Amino acid sequence: MHTIFSTLESLIADRLQAAPEASYVASLNAKGLDAILKKIGEESSEVIIAAKNASHDEIVYEACDLIFHLFILLKQQNIPLSDIEKELTRRLGVSGLTEKANRNTN
Amino acid sequence: MHTIFSTLESLIADRLQAAPEASYVASLNAKGLDAILKKIGEESSEVIIAAKNASHDEIVYEACDLIFHLFILLKQQNIPLSDIEKELTRRLGVSGLTEKANRNTN
Amino acid sequence: MHTIFSTLESLIADRLQAAPEASYVASLNAKGLDAILKKIGEESSEVIIAAKNASHDEIVYEACDLIFHLFILLKQQNIPLSDIEKELTRRLGVSGLTEKANRNTN
Amino acid sequence: MHTIFSTLESLIADRLQAAPEASYVASLNAKGLDAILKKIGEESSEVIIAAKNASHDEIVYEACDLIFHLFILLKQQNIPLSDIEKELTRRLGVSGLTEKANRNTN
Repeated sequence: MHTIFSTLESLIADRLQAAPEASYVASLNAKGLDAILKKIGEESSEVIIAAKNASHDEIVYEACDLIFHLFILLKQQNIPLSDIEKELTRRLGVSGLTEKANRNTN
Repeated sequence: MHTIFSTLESLIADRLQAAPEASYVASLNAKGLDAILKKIGEESSEVIIAAKNASHDEIVYEACDLIFHLFILLKQQNIPLSDIEKELTRRLGVSGLTEKANRNTN
Repeated sequence: MHTIFSTLESLIADRLQAAPEASYVASLNAKGLDAILKKIGEESSEVIIAAKNASHDEIVYEACDLIFHLFILLKQQNIPLSDIEKELTRRLGVSGLTEKANRNTN
Repeated sequence: MHTIFSTLESLIADRLQAAPEASYVASLNAKGLDAILKKIGEESSEVIIAAKNASHDEIVYEACDLIFHLFILLKQQNIPLSDIEKELTRRLGVSGLTEKANRNTN
């Protein structure tokens, strides 16, 4: 099953092989982990500012920037998207049950 | 097509209908936008710290926390996941071509 | 009494009068509040990264960057340093007493 | 010369000697570096949100929280306030001259 998120993961993996001059992803990766982390800090602040501006387009744009850089970090750390999907699945399962239990007692 | 990300979106929508006492999502949402944004700031710092700790499990955990709260923000702002997917698709298309053009000139 | 912090406050006030081409402070201010806030988000992430790198010089450098941009924000919002000093004084007074009370009961 | 900032530094040094149960500073420090850094990430997001709310009191409050936790970090890293003051002095000197030079050429 191919989703835009798995396509994004593949694309980042692909670009990391490119020359730093030819690709933003390769160029950021060449600067090292700290440069990627600074971008994550920056983009999350921009999501916060966008939300306070109540601008749909700005929020979508900045949320995509944040997701994009988070996926670069994951790839740089050799963490496959499937590990994220597994953890989200685990949480949804657990908390789905917790929710159900909570509702039954109310 | 159901992915874990669309499941997450549905689950958050569902929980927002729950009583604040019965659901973390509903309780955070009841506190308002600023409370959600503080969590985004907090979770992105925790991703940064996790990455500097070079801990696979900590990075996966904190990345999921960040994605989870980002999805709460999107729902609270009435932004469907499909808007994010559309913007990511647009970017991958554009930059895919840019990459290709760049490579051809090298 | 002139301290480096009050000198910093004066200097920022002074530079805000300069042409944006002649001064970083004036140029940042000309971009508006959001640009200043993005820098605060950025610099605080850099303090976090510097501390994880356990580098004295990097921490000092990034802490100064954060303080510098925080002072730009305060001036842009017409908040004098004396308001910060007053609030810090209030807290130290109150919590000094709280501490003392806590210790007496131990 | 005693300023509120040097008083804050002394007070934090003093509290670090207290039992974690008796002092917020000692209790945060006992949790380790990552806990202090999470607070810095959190407080800087709160400064951003406060500024977007255009609330004088909220900005002052959150700016003090950020400064307070930055000073805890400095002390935990054995960095005296005088190192920060020295770096700020160096910058103001250098950039003061740069500014002057820039103005002379305009």
